[in-house]
Amino acid sequence: MPKTAEILAIGSELLTPQHIDTNSLVVTEQLNLLGVEVVAKHVMGDDRERISQAVQDCVGRSNIVILIGGLGPTEDDVTREAVAAALGLELKLSLEQESILISRFRQINRPMAKNNIRQAYLLQGAEAMPNPHGTAPGQYLSTDRGALALLPGPPREMKPMVINELIPRLRPVIPPQVIKVRSFRITGIGESDLDTLIAPVYTKYTNPVTTVLSSPGDLLVSLRAQAETEQEADDLLREVGNPIAELLGDKIYSTNPDEPLEAVVGCLLRKHHATVATAESCTGGLVAARLTERPGSSDFFLAGYVTYSNLQKQQILDVPPNLIQKHTAVSEPVAGAMAEGARRVSGASYALATTGYAGPDGGTDYDPVGTVYLAIASPAETRVIRIRYGADRWRVRTLATQASLDLLRKMLLKS
Amino acid sequence: MPKTAEILAIGSELLTPQHIDTNSLVVTEQLNLLGVEVVAKHVMGDDRERISQAVQDCVGRSNIVILIGGLGPTEDDVTREAVAAALGLELKLSLEQESILISRFRQINRPMAKNNIRQAYLLQGAEAMPNPHGTAPGQYLSTDRGALALLPGPPREMKPMVINELIPRLRPVIPPQVIKVRSFRITGIGESDLDTLIAPVYTKYTNPVTTVLSSPGDLLVSLRAQAETEQEADDLLREVGNPIAELLGDKIYSTNPDEPLEAVVGCLLRKHHATVATAESCTGGLVAARLTERPGSSDFFLAGYVTYSNLQKQQILDVPPNLIQKHTAVSEPVAGAMAEGARRVSGASYALATTGYAGPDGGTDYDPVGTVYLAIASPAETRVIRIRYGADRWRVRTLATQASLDLLRKMLLKS
Repeated sequence: MPKTAEILAIGSELLTPQHIDTNSLVVTEQLNLLGVEVVAKHVMGDDRERISQAVQDCVGRSNIVILIGGLGPTEDDVTREAVAAALGLELKLSLEQESILISRFRQINRPMAKNNIRQAYLLQGAEAMPNPHGTAPGQYLSTDRGALALLPGPPREMKPMVINELIPRLRPVIPPQVIKVRSFRITGIGESDLDTLIAPVYTKYTNPVTTVLSSPGDLLVSLRAQAETEQEADDLLREVGNPIAELLGDKIYSTNPDEPLEAVVGCLLRKHHATVATAESCTGGLVAARLTERPGSSDFFLAGYVTYSNLQKQQILDVPPNLIQKHTAVSEPVAGAMAEGARRVSGASYALATTGYAGPDGGTDYDPVGTVYLAIASPAETRVIRIRYGADRWRVRTLATQASLDLLRKMLLKS
Repeated sequence: MPKTAEILAIGSELLTPQHIDTNSLVVTEQLNLLGVEVVAKHVMGDDRERISQAVQDCVGRSNIVILIGGLGPTEDDVTREAVAAALGLELKLSLEQESILISRFRQINRPMAKNNIRQAYLLQGAEAMPNPHGTAPGQYLSTDRGALALLPGPPREMKPMVINELIPRLRPVIPPQVIKVRSFRITGIGESDLDTLIAPVYTKYTNPVTTVLSSPGDLLVSLRAQAETEQEADDLLREVGNPIAELLGDKIYSTNPDEPLEAVVGCLLRKHHATVATAESCTGGLVAARLTERPGSSDFFLAGYVTYSNLQKQQILDVPPNLIQKHTAVSEPVAGAMAEGARRVSGASYALATTGYAGPDGGTDYDPVGTVYLAIASPAETRVIRIRYGADRWRVRTLATQASLDLLRKMLLKS
């Protein structure tokens, strides 16, 4: 049975529009490595009643309960008292902690405020976790279902305490467990179409857990397997992951969750010793910006042309004026001519071109707002595709940029 | 008695070490403006039982309960079902929502996956909140203590829905109170320098509340006054806002919190019947992408050149080869020549140029990584400034883009 944890981040500032709890990310990472799943996170203000109630709820549900913050010396630091009340435990002055506090203040040559003595009180039965970076010790308490811990709020005190004090205490309590993750980054398919395709595979399994994360033109499918051995976790990931990989084919552009499409395209260009140029109209420079986002992009990126006006398409990219007159600037022949022009002018091996109606105005009956022509010119051929996006300006530009990069990826894969 | 709210962010990815809920910040800000205090935030996975239990707890404690996420079309999107179970309500197919969904898919010319119909189900008694940016409508339900709302998870869908749909529905429910906000959008000064400058003014007041929100190269100072009458709120904002405005001068580029720098620059260009072109090296197309981000930018944006290689700087922008040989491509003379070349080639009234070492590699003793030359060519003159950013590649590119746009703003203001 999997162990579960909940995290409570305490502090009224964490409930303002300006601040966010990031401490829980560190705790989550360390707990996951132990095979413990974080099933809920909560943020509360410095409010004794609310914290107390939340602690009671959490210890009733989850094996491990971690409270972060509210261990300071001031009156609004109420975590200790709230937990004591929730669990019906007394707070007791620890003489050892008192003397640690006193010597710490002596060491930094500062008078100890009277309030600071509150930090020397421990929950009945709790073990103090030393804090070399601050005055508030952490506390570790075994409970019926598992454990409860109090951690200080400042990240530079909390993080080392998690790694050096908390995790070593939890490890013997947790049955050995392995968690492994397999990821697919996907483009060229919408979220619901993706789900229609792969849900029949993954919904048969509760382990691994499958999640789909979606941003415009970009999907991340993650399988997370829990098992007793690495072998077993790998087997589970293979069992569910392989059929998914087969269904998606070259729509999967990476199996590294942190590798965006422009990084994949950059690697492929390097591998082929190829270079690229861009000719953009509706994407306004976004394709070039993506291609140059990562260090070292000057190895393969030669030039970008943002030719918004017809005159620029003619002057810079040598698009024949009669082509624009006959077909308009948003058309298959003009997209193709833009890509070929960019390739010729820059001397790059490949060139990408975009032209379309990003909206909200413009468009024709045949090519309404949202229509984009994407072209790629290579040493061997020029290809143009037409896509109709039903989306706002920002999404049309983002989706067209992604699709343009993907055109290049697919052509490089084939060559 | 103050109204209280709790926020539940739903999504298994929000319980991993990589992701964090930031949607709740937007909701908190808007609720605070209404005078509603957020007393707790919770993050849960896509787990029907847990969400259901949490909803029951929240509606028992707080006036307003906001759920964000889990409204997608896929099987792991269970928010609707969980809330229905918690409140003992049925989910009913809304024919109106069904036809909105169908016409949306028709509009974007894509078949509607069978799963999508799940998004047309509303909680009994709930009102749909339209989502112009996605397929999942929000839902608004009056409860015994106040209200409960379901919002979609993608920030681009959630934020406008909060502002345009949720807040107008909540306002009549909340006891009247005047809250007025005065905002300054600022560039060209760092966060701590700004605070050193204006803190002596605003720290004397607890009403209005002053907050500083910072993103790279872009600061937002907001004064929020609470009062019984509009007059009183306006007086408070004047008392604190006027001295701040005086201290910051033309570093304030807008007093509209939703108006980014490119929008201000676009307005100024239109006002002057002027046009612009860009010649980018280290920013790789980002200046062009920002200038073309808003609708109608073809009125003033003529062309962008991303000249990464020296050859391109010479061929496209007519930068003299000996200038590059003598000074290197990252230098004041080359930046100036790029801007002048872009202006000449495009026929635009103004041209912006960027060249620099975005890093992490490159740079010289005199111009280490992070050094950027920004040039502007106008009908009257060419100016070049040199900035040294101590930041990573992403920040260097973002900061240089912002500073380049600001150069144009300041020149337009003077002309």
